Amino acid sequence: MTPAPRMAVIRAPDAVRRQTRQWRKKGRRIAFVPTMGFFHEGHLSLMRRARTLADHVVISVFVNPTQFGPAEDFEGYPRNVPRDLDLARGERVDVCFLPRAERLYATDRRTAVHVTGLEHVLEGTTRPTHFSGVTLVVLKLLHIVEPDVLVLGQKDAQQALILEHMVRDLDVPVRVVRGPIVRERDGLAMSSRNVRLSPEERRAAPVLFRALRDARVLITSGERRVEPILRRIRARIAEEPLARLDYVAIVDARNLNPLERLEGRVLIPIAAWLGTTRLIDNLELSVRAAS
Amino acid sequence: MTPAPRMAVIRAPDAVRRQTRQWRKKGRRIAFVPTMGFFHEGHLSLMRRARTLADHVVISVFVNPTQFGPAEDFEGYPRNVPRDLDLARGERVDVCFLPRAERLYATDRRTAVHVTGLEHVLEGTTRPTHFSGVTLVVLKLLHIVEPDVLVLGQKDAQQALILEHMVRDLDVPVRVVRGPIVRERDGLAMSSRNVRLSPEERRAAPVLFRALRDARVLITSGERRVEPILRRIRARIAEEPLARLDYVAIVDARNLNPLERLEGRVLIPIAAWLGTTRLIDNLELSVRAAS
Repeated sequence: MTPAPRMAVIRAPDAVRRQTRQWRKKGRRIAFVPTMGFFHEGHLSLMRRARTLADHVVISVFVNPTQFGPAEDFEGYPRNVPRDLDLARGERVDVCFLPRAERLYATDRRTAVHVTGLEHVLEGTTRPTHFSGVTLVVLKLLHIVEPDVLVLGQKDAQQALILEHMVRDLDVPVRVVRGPIVRERDGLAMSSRNVRLSPEERRAAPVLFRALRDARVLITSGERRVEPILRRIRARIAEEPLARLDYVAIVDARNLNPLERLEGRVLIPIAAWLGTTRLIDNLELSVRAAS
Repeated sequence: MTPAPRMAVIRAPDAVRRQTRQWRKKGRRIAFVPTMGFFHEGHLSLMRRARTLADHVVISVFVNPTQFGPAEDFEGYPRNVPRDLDLARGERVDVCFLPRAERLYATDRRTAVHVTGLEHVLEGTTRPTHFSGVTLVVLKLLHIVEPDVLVLGQKDAQQALILEHMVRDLDVPVRVVRGPIVRERDGLAMSSRNVRLSPEERRAAPVLFRALRDARVLITSGERRVEPILRRIRARIAEEPLARLDYVAIVDARNLNPLERLEGRVLIPIAAWLGTTRLIDNLELSVRAAS
């Protein structure tokens, strides 16, 4: 066994592109995982997935200011770059791109990328500028890294859908692959924000997962009406005094349109506050029409 | 001398990208000229410029529906693809990309690219959706062709500025080069729309050029105030009974902000109607502050 070459940590966009273009010239395939760092098993699973899809894996670690609203937690978003680099090395990542915000965004920046109809619903209701910040940074990163495959996490299902739409509508030459949600043993979806939970909130947090599990049980047993499922989810969240529901919905997974009856690709996204921490989770599944 | 290889006429986006990727793999450079066809000497000069900048030249001929308003002349825009192909062959173009609108635009298209602050002034005042149509199609074409150099015409100076901004803000890996305005012997800027002019309108049309020439004379002789120059331009257009001024402005060429005094890179764009045909022209020049 030859030792894996060292991971390159690169700050300059041009240097990243030079590296990936060298690889491409040799016919090598590149998979890219954009992240905001503070890695957990969810991130690592995407890097492993990327490994299986390409010859080289590039990740980015960048807490992107343009996707945070003015009242949101950009400053307080958890960060630990040295630990992230160690974990990425452990996954045999080839390049970790660590851009500087002031290099990435010109002060007279004017360009905005919108995916209309998808960006202002669900997460976009409470975070109206969030997804235009996401599309902007990911499109920039795709132009810098020029990967063959973009690996995204299902935890942010709406984000993944919006980026898939953007890639298709703009003919960006990249294939988008989603990796599944990774959960703690008690069902809590892994999130960098979980570290902000108090011990009591942490114990309460799996209520999102349990509510979605209840929904799955109802659907598996034949329920196709939206209201009974939403009622069950809301009741489950209400049982937990530390949790406050932000939204839950049952929508068409392809366009986020609210469903009247469950059929086809169904997405049930949920967001709830535990204290001052806002958590999201979702369930996506294929549903056959009731017989 | 070896005969030039035949120009390939390609309709499928994937086939274009396959070709340009083959070239890139061999280290060849690609220049791209997007057009709406109905070629005149202005287009051909851009193709020649492209030849000097790269090993291979790709052009596109596509009357892009998304950049026409509902009341505009999409249907009536002049077209002559067989003639365009002959002219492009004469310029030793390697690939002519002839996309089909229904292949380029999905019916559930949602993505929009805006360059705020530049897209709703000047041309954008009367054509509010025009530039978002232009940014969308050019970004798509750049993702399909993946050129090293994008060659644009100075005749559409605002369009060129907006696309330069987009390319920079999104880190699109392409260099943008502008080719100069090409004029008829009487000064009329070449435009595909010139064929729509009646013989009388055609005789009157160089009034835009003459008005800009007057402005240049004033500036050369030391005038740095905006109002006398605008007055002279307006007076010149008013002398021509067949012409009706749409707008004229004196702006900073880098951001289209109106100037109070002329200094630095100055752009003077003008638009006027001759009958039912709307023509544009402009003068861009570097101005030293008055001594």
